[in-house]
Amino acid sequence: MKKRLLTISALLLLSASNTLFAKDVYVSSESALQKAIKAAVAGDNLILKNGTYTDINIVFYGEGTEDKPITLKAETPGKVFIEGLSDLKLGGTYLNVDGLYFRNGYTPSSSVINFRIDEERIAFHSKVTNSVIDEFTQKDREARDWWVEFWGQHNELSHSYLAGKSNRGPTVKVQLGGNQHINNHHQIVNNHFGPRPRKGGPSAETMQLGSSSTSMTPSYTNIENNLFDRCNGEVEVISSKSNYNQFKNNVFFQSEGSLVLRHGNYATIDGNLFIGDGSNEFVGGIRVINTGHWITNNYFYKLTGEKFRAPIAVMNGIPKSPLNRYNQVTDVVVAYNSWVDSPTPWYFSVGSNVEQSDVLPKSEIRSARPTRTLFANNLIYNSAKAEQPIHAYDKVDGITFKANISNHANKSGIGEDGISQQKMTLAGQSDYLKAPTATLAKPYHGFDFDKIDTDLLGNKRANNNNIGAISNTAAISDKPFDESRFGPSWFEAEQPAAAPSTHKAATANELVQAIKAAQSGDTIELSAASYALSQSISIDKQVRITSANKNKPATLSFSASNTAFLMQPKGDLTLDSVTIQGNGKQHAFATLDKYMSKAYNLSIINAKIANFKHVLEVSMGSFADNIEVVNTRIENCQSGFMLNKETKNKGTYNAEYLVIKNSSFDRIDGAIVDFHRGGYDESTIGGILVFENNTVTNSGKARADKVLMKNHGIVNVTFEGNTFNNNPVDVIAILWGEKGQKPVGNTIKNSGKIKVVDNLKLDLLY
Amino acid sequence: MKKRLLTISALLLLSASNTLFAKDVYVSSESALQKAIKAAVAGDNLILKNGTYTDINIVFYGEGTEDKPITLKAETPGKVFIEGLSDLKLGGTYLNVDGLYFRNGYTPSSSVINFRIDEERIAFHSKVTNSVIDEFTQKDREARDWWVEFWGQHNELSHSYLAGKSNRGPTVKVQLGGNQHINNHHQIVNNHFGPRPRKGGPSAETMQLGSSSTSMTPSYTNIENNLFDRCNGEVEVISSKSNYNQFKNNVFFQSEGSLVLRHGNYATIDGNLFIGDGSNEFVGGIRVINTGHWITNNYFYKLTGEKFRAPIAVMNGIPKSPLNRYNQVTDVVVAYNSWVDSPTPWYFSVGSNVEQSDVLPKSEIRSARPTRTLFANNLIYNSAKAEQPIHAYDKVDGITFKANISNHANKSGIGEDGISQQKMTLAGQSDYLKAPTATLAKPYHGFDFDKIDTDLLGNKRANNNNIGAISNTAAISDKPFDESRFGPSWFEAEQPAAAPSTHKAATANELVQAIKAAQSGDTIELSAASYALSQSISIDKQVRITSANKNKPATLSFSASNTAFLMQPKGDLTLDSVTIQGNGKQHAFATLDKYMSKAYNLSIINAKIANFKHVLEVSMGSFADNIEVVNTRIENCQSGFMLNKETKNKGTYNAEYLVIKNSSFDRIDGAIVDFHRGGYDESTIGGILVFENNTVTNSGKARADKVLMKNHGIVNVTFEGNTFNNNPVDVIAILWGEKGQKPVGNTIKNSGKIKVVDNLKLDLLY
Repeated sequence: MKKRLLTISALLLLSASNTLFAKDVYVSSESALQKAIKAAVAGDNLILKNGTYTDINIVFYGEGTEDKPITLKAETPGKVFIEGLSDLKLGGTYLNVDGLYFRNGYTPSSSVINFRIDEERIAFHSKVTNSVIDEFTQKDREARDWWVEFWGQHNELSHSYLAGKSNRGPTVKVQLGGNQHINNHHQIVNNHFGPRPRKGGPSAETMQLGSSSTSMTPSYTNIENNLFDRCNGEVEVISSKSNYNQFKNNVFFQSEGSLVLRHGNYATIDGNLFIGDGSNEFVGGIRVINTGHWITNNYFYKLTGEKFRAPIAVMNGIPKSPLNRYNQVTDVVVAYNSWVDSPTPWYFSVGSNVEQSDVLPKSEIRSARPTRTLFANNLIYNSAKAEQPIHAYDKVDGITFKANISNHANKSGIGEDGISQQKMTLAGQSDYLKAPTATLAKPYHGFDFDKIDTDLLGNKRANNNNIGAISNTAAISDKPFDESRFGPSWFEAEQPAAAPSTHKAATANELVQAIKAAQSGDTIELSAASYALSQSISIDKQVRITSANKNKPATLSFSASNTAFLMQPKGDLTLDSVTIQGNGKQHAFATLDKYMSKAYNLSIINAKIANFKHVLEVSMGSFADNIEVVNTRIENCQSGFMLNKETKNKGTYNAEYLVIKNSSFDRIDGAIVDFHRGGYDESTIGGILVFENNTVTNSGKARADKVLMKNHGIVNVTFEGNTFNNNPVDVIAILWGEKGQKPVGNTIKNSGKIKVVDNLKLDLLY
Repeated sequence: MKKRLLTISALLLLSASNTLFAKDVYVSSESALQKAIKAAVAGDNLILKNGTYTDINIVFYGEGTEDKPITLKAETPGKVFIEGLSDLKLGGTYLNVDGLYFRNGYTPSSSVINFRIDEERIAFHSKVTNSVIDEFTQKDREARDWWVEFWGQHNELSHSYLAGKSNRGPTVKVQLGGNQHINNHHQIVNNHFGPRPRKGGPSAETMQLGSSSTSMTPSYTNIENNLFDRCNGEVEVISSKSNYNQFKNNVFFQSEGSLVLRHGNYATIDGNLFIGDGSNEFVGGIRVINTGHWITNNYFYKLTGEKFRAPIAVMNGIPKSPLNRYNQVTDVVVAYNSWVDSPTPWYFSVGSNVEQSDVLPKSEIRSARPTRTLFANNLIYNSAKAEQPIHAYDKVDGITFKANISNHANKSGIGEDGISQQKMTLAGQSDYLKAPTATLAKPYHGFDFDKIDTDLLGNKRANNNNIGAISNTAAISDKPFDESRFGPSWFEAEQPAAAPSTHKAATANELVQAIKAAQSGDTIELSAASYALSQSISIDKQVRITSANKNKPATLSFSASNTAFLMQPKGDLTLDSVTIQGNGKQHAFATLDKYMSKAYNLSIINAKIANFKHVLEVSMGSFADNIEVVNTRIENCQSGFMLNKETKNKGTYNAEYLVIKNSSFDRIDGAIVDFHRGGYDESTIGGILVFENNTVTNSGKARADKVLMKNHGIVNVTFEGNTFNNNPVDVIAILWGEKGQKPVGNTIKNSGKIKVVDNLKLDLLY
């Protein structure tokens, strides 16, 4: 026995000596770092010296303790750059990563930061903090990765900035397959999720917590005090797909999408701010599916979305839904929230699609209405008259309304007993947050309501309760928007742009050189009358090309073989008052054949485009955020805008906006527009085509299908005030009635007709 | 302010005075009881005086406190009988019900005992204890009720005895629809669930915790220290359909079914005993569906079931299963269990039915194999050679085996690395429980295994660990089976039967009188040669009719109009060495037209049956547990055994066993047997037809379909050694190949043929 005791003492001593020698280790290469990691003991600091590390794959395994974590940190936060094909994997216990900056590259593995090394080496009680991942995006938008992939339990992402992911895959993913990863209590706190661009296809969530196949697991992930700043690209900014997640005190700022309780149950959504601009109808709020969520103390401001993007959308479910589809909403509590200047805040039975029974299988029909759901003590305030607080797509028979107050009459015909009209004055020292100056009514006390014991700002409700998210105007300030709450303190998310310059170009060569030399934002001014260009002009930044004398537009004549302008990732070209002409063999505008890793923009104003093959030819995987054509004459081309390369019918498409106004098409033999989105998918804006006040003549003669322009699957179409003359086709365009598309005030002569079909038959994606 | 304080003090005083006067109130009528309930305050005892209360509907609302519950109790437990159309509803807080005895009646509402009065008045912290519900069953087996219906939170059923429920509906039901009812922590403890008869159709569970539509809710119901004693009638003795339920230290004794994790996830099944008899293949163990269950420290003894009724059945799921069907098994841990004399304990991918793709819709095909599932530290011991510990219906690629030990070789071809053969000796002072006398191997330490810190008997595993459910043989006794753990102490579940008598009958009148006078179990001896009976003989108890001289059987000649023998609920008739004959217009045996509330039995031995319409004619809703015909001659009847009245095709059927052996049928114009079960249902035994060594001649001539005997949908059929001669039909019978049915050694002459179809197309029930 004595011997055994001795052994234990010796072990204790050894262990103690390891921590006694906890040390700072400075490294400046991958091999030195890996060596240091192998040697590290609890309490050690591994310090990456300032500099740029390219193609570095960090495998950080260690066994720290609560008191003595092992830390991998930047010598100076923000001065250690991780570039190229790089990633970071963590495994073990109590590991900290601090101050790294990922940019100019992408991960060669499934994720930039992964909280496991492999199935056996998983991270617990570990964190990444005070770091940046900026445009560290795959070259191909359909190549899937995550930027932060959570496994294990009790891990953290905090005070970090993540922005500019253009490719497939949620920015942050919580994985739940396996008992080691459930009940994880991960903390995703105090981060700044900067702009995520529109993607033009599904799977661009900023955060996804689980998946349908693990949606029965208890996750207990905490999403608190984060800023979601213009996180676009998916109808689900956050897709919660597991149980018991908490979303608390986050700010959703002009993000085109919603916080969606997609799968899983018993989420807490408390004290969040959802900020719109009063006009962008793609900015959403909360979308509710499944059971037992508590949505309390939230503040919704200037939200104008509808349906899936409503301020609050309570969905219809599919009876006995398949695991990956839509469960019925049951046992949800929506209490003590405020909707301000959001004219119709509550949408019920969203997704009801009984009328689509002909084009959808039975297992897709959402006919199960929400039930056992309570809306109580909510405030609705609109400065302009708004008398439709509720929009419902089905009977409302499963929702109880108690003690909700609006400053306008409720003329929706729903919830009369539980929504009272009351005059009120809102006040508060904030641009956004306001609350009634007087107590409006005695709040309803529902089952377990004693647990809602504070308001949005943390005021105790016990003594000074009121309807709505804020019980006490005295405490209101803009503190919730204080940027110091979000992201790394050393990082400035929006760098001030340099003042733009204007470069003059009198010859073709000067033009080519000027474009090369330009800083993003600069203008090139064409002072000569014409330019003969034998090569394509590559655009990889924001450039404006305009004529010195707008009344006498310069002509650019191209003999380049493939295309006149070659749009590259982040290329943003404006042609203003310029004529471009080709030799009939090349395109006017084209994208790279592949690796269009980021979106491009194209703006054509007061221009003339003639004698090209296609006006715009794109590649699969390319994506234009905005294509705008105004006051422009297009003539004698084979085809027009060919945004039709996403033929896999998986919900992807080649542009978000295609706006053509006050322009003319003449002698375009093929389609003047082919804008294609295939597959039944609800996760994107779905494309926007505006075709307004244009004239189309003598076009479409080469169309075998006798259709002049195609917009298959594009969700938002405006088709108004156009004139079609002498186009030898049967059909000008087919509009999608179910999406509200209809032709308005078009003049048609000898050009076939405009068709409207109600329901479009689309491939299911799942 | 002073005034307000005074008011509060006065209220406190009033409140105190109420409890100061807590009192015993004796009542002996429903009206007095309801008055007493209305007046009751915390701490009161409401005492039902001894006696029988008929058609009493108790609405027990009260607000007791933890220290001072309100109690409704029997003056003497077991001396207060609740009969007729009676029920009990509880609502409020801290209510106790103690010592009631429900019998001779049934509930007029949804349940006998309901833990809510209505949607507003729900019980919390309330209990029913020390009570009995015995054969308090609906008159119609398809009339649905529950005996104990749980709502609210923190309620309890304890030390009670419940037996003899024959009708549709689980004996105990936990309801979970609504936030008031989740996280309920109900305690169902120390009860004796006595025999539940076979039902002949679905929905006869002893316990159902939730439903598919509420299966996402956290229930946390605790089922502990109960005896499930021959709880038959459903393949699911317990159907767990919610999350986080615990099943601990229960005894499942010869119950024809399993503990089934039907819907919901994260169940704990720890320290239970599953006891079979080594031959009854309908006695099951645990059936596993869904995610995250921990199955530890259980002991399985003499279980011989297969497939759904295997000792442990791990199912295949349906990919993306609908809510009410079969999710994939994932993340399940099966550790430290013992299987003793259960030759093939582990069944994997049970329910795989890919081969039935032709007859089932895609949404019914169970092709998703179990995954991320661990079997570790389990013990398999068989006294006889048993080298197939695993039976798998699909590839086994998602199950990890670690440190399992069997005393025989594993020749299943599966799990070789994780199941080692090792010699061992089992010991222990118990009829059932035994454990190895030596330490077998070092147990595997999986994720979270430190939580399995005790064994089946409560021994700490820390110091003295071993493979299997019991880590230490020294502590083994029969204590787990000690009946004093289960049910009310005052109640004797099995009353000793009176000694049977024999009544002699020399005339028809004496026969009628003797049957009336007989006690259940008695014999009537026929001493004359013949009896002319002008009325039907009603059988509502166990009666045996036999001839005094078995070599010269007496003849009973019936002129009664409807039937010779009228079987009533619980009628159990044996005819031994008797001839019965009719006038061709009545049936030999028939059931009541309705209200066959309990099963009947029929045994015909060495008899002759002639000149009847049907041999057996039954009503919809009637159910025979066992019909046995041996050495009997049946002739000149319109039809034989017509168990064909369950034509709704909802999985119900009219008899469990129909066994006909060594008998003959001659000149039966219609079907000799029509035994029908319709609808796709897996919840019952599904009927058993044994047709063996019989001779059938000159029968079937009136069958339009040219089929001699029908057994549509009957699952278990033995068809062997029969002779068919000169029957003018095309088909003798159609057997169901998928269920293993095949004809063996039959002789057929001029009688058509026996057909086998592989898959039967059946209506889906859901």
